[in-house]
Amino acid sequence: MNNERAGARLTNPRAERVRKVAALARRAVRTREGLFLAEGPQAVREAVAYRPELVREVYVDPQRCPQLHQAAAEAGLAVYEAAPEVLSAMCDTQAPQGIIAVCEPVDVSLESVLPSAGYVAVLAQVRDPGNAGTVLRGADAAGADAVIFTDSSVDVYNPKVVRSTVGSLFHVPVVVGVELDSVLAQCRAAGVRLLAADGAGDRVLRDSPLQGRHAWVFGNEAWGLPQQVRAQCDEVVRVPIYGQAESLNLAMAATLCLYASADAHHR
Amino acid sequence: MNNERAGARLTNPRAERVRKVAALARRAVRTREGLFLAEGPQAVREAVAYRPELVREVYVDPQRCPQLHQAAAEAGLAVYEAAPEVLSAMCDTQAPQGIIAVCEPVDVSLESVLPSAGYVAVLAQVRDPGNAGTVLRGADAAGADAVIFTDSSVDVYNPKVVRSTVGSLFHVPVVVGVELDSVLAQCRAAGVRLLAADGAGDRVLRDSPLQGRHAWVFGNEAWGLPQQVRAQCDEVVRVPIYGQAESLNLAMAATLCLYASADAHHR
Repeated sequence: MNNERAGARLTNPRAERVRKVAALARRAVRTREGLFLAEGPQAVREAVAYRPELVREVYVDPQRCPQLHQAAAEAGLAVYEAAPEVLSAMCDTQAPQGIIAVCEPVDVSLESVLPSAGYVAVLAQVRDPGNAGTVLRGADAAGADAVIFTDSSVDVYNPKVVRSTVGSLFHVPVVVGVELDSVLAQCRAAGVRLLAADGAGDRVLRDSPLQGRHAWVFGNEAWGLPQQVRAQCDEVVRVPIYGQAESLNLAMAATLCLYASADAHHR
Repeated sequence: MNNERAGARLTNPRAERVRKVAALARRAVRTREGLFLAEGPQAVREAVAYRPELVREVYVDPQRCPQLHQAAAEAGLAVYEAAPEVLSAMCDTQAPQGIIAVCEPVDVSLESVLPSAGYVAVLAQVRDPGNAGTVLRGADAAGADAVIFTDSSVDVYNPKVVRSTVGSLFHVPVVVGVELDSVLAQCRAAGVRLLAADGAGDRVLRDSPLQGRHAWVFGNEAWGLPQQVRAQCDEVVRVPIYGQAESLNLAMAATLCLYASADAHHR
């Protein structure tokens, strides 16, 4: 995509470059190109601040995002000024926010995170992009050492996931594409205790000892964790429901579990 | 709206009755009629189970929701069979789920909940319907004794709020339309300690004593709580950020605070 010099202003929403960026909304294209889109000031700010080496190109409306325009240029990145209609054409959202970055994948290997991990989140078959992104945001806030998306989960580079992380995708080490059985086996081999989070758990969250190294395993937002997954874990822990709600949503349950881990590890 | 007998099957999406139900998507109409819409099986199931006295009419596609159809009829409610295109025309969502209930308001007075309240949530200027509904769901799960929406917050009877509560609107006592200053004064008079939840708080959540009666005060999702509101509270408490995330979203922060209250009250 580097056939125009950085610094040029893009004005034609039908240009080939614009279509190539827009095509990254599709998973097959992301996989083929090894690139994904970070849209909007929050995501791009965190990408530039935390992972500038992964930012391939930045497209910006300098009127809308002057400070971020300057920050990206000062970081030595390939920055292109773009007309609002060009950003709209590149962007997955209906209301683009003046800036887009084309980035290389952030994911790391499971082997690289497990040896030093205190507490991590494993997402087994999480399908909703907004849920997945919000769990990642909660895991970041709770100081988790990694978030692991098993291979049947939503693509973390889906633009809706990226947006829902509000930049946390560039903060927390993320592992993708490993089968759940393999994740569980590797955690066990690394001495990381496996805690299934499930409403059917015997033990209540606040009574669960969380000082040691552990991985929370979270299931699908609708049908939870299958019995054979729960059976492979060292313990099944439930977040109690004190009122009449049938359940908590996945992001809330995950945030409560990971904050309990954080409180135990930082006490 | 009772000009046809219950039991009749509605097939005309342009009928006056259908337009009257659909008009409840608008706040002015809800206020004038004193009615709101609960859409989808989860919301209607909870309305029928917990607050049948408030359910004025149920419109159902019997093929899609046979059990709930039967439950509503057995509860003695006014149930109308409706063709799918009638439910679509009545409904705020693009994908209606086969059942709608027209309900009378659930809200109660602040005076009725404060004397016996252990812990409650006060939402000051919460504007996003999804956030408001998700906070209510989290408050229900955490066993809060009431959720108070101050008069500058989103309308709890907005169809998006109702949907996001996933039925919790019919579980937790809800107070609406009281000015924040008045809420704070009445809490104080009732001996309910005021805790502002804010990232600028001096005290960290886990160190905050929560055994007594208290009200959590949560601010707007974007700009938080104004200084003059924080100054009126007994304490400003923050949910710590252990990682690099800039913040938690409102529903997560509220759920963490209210679960801390629940743990203290149920220990």
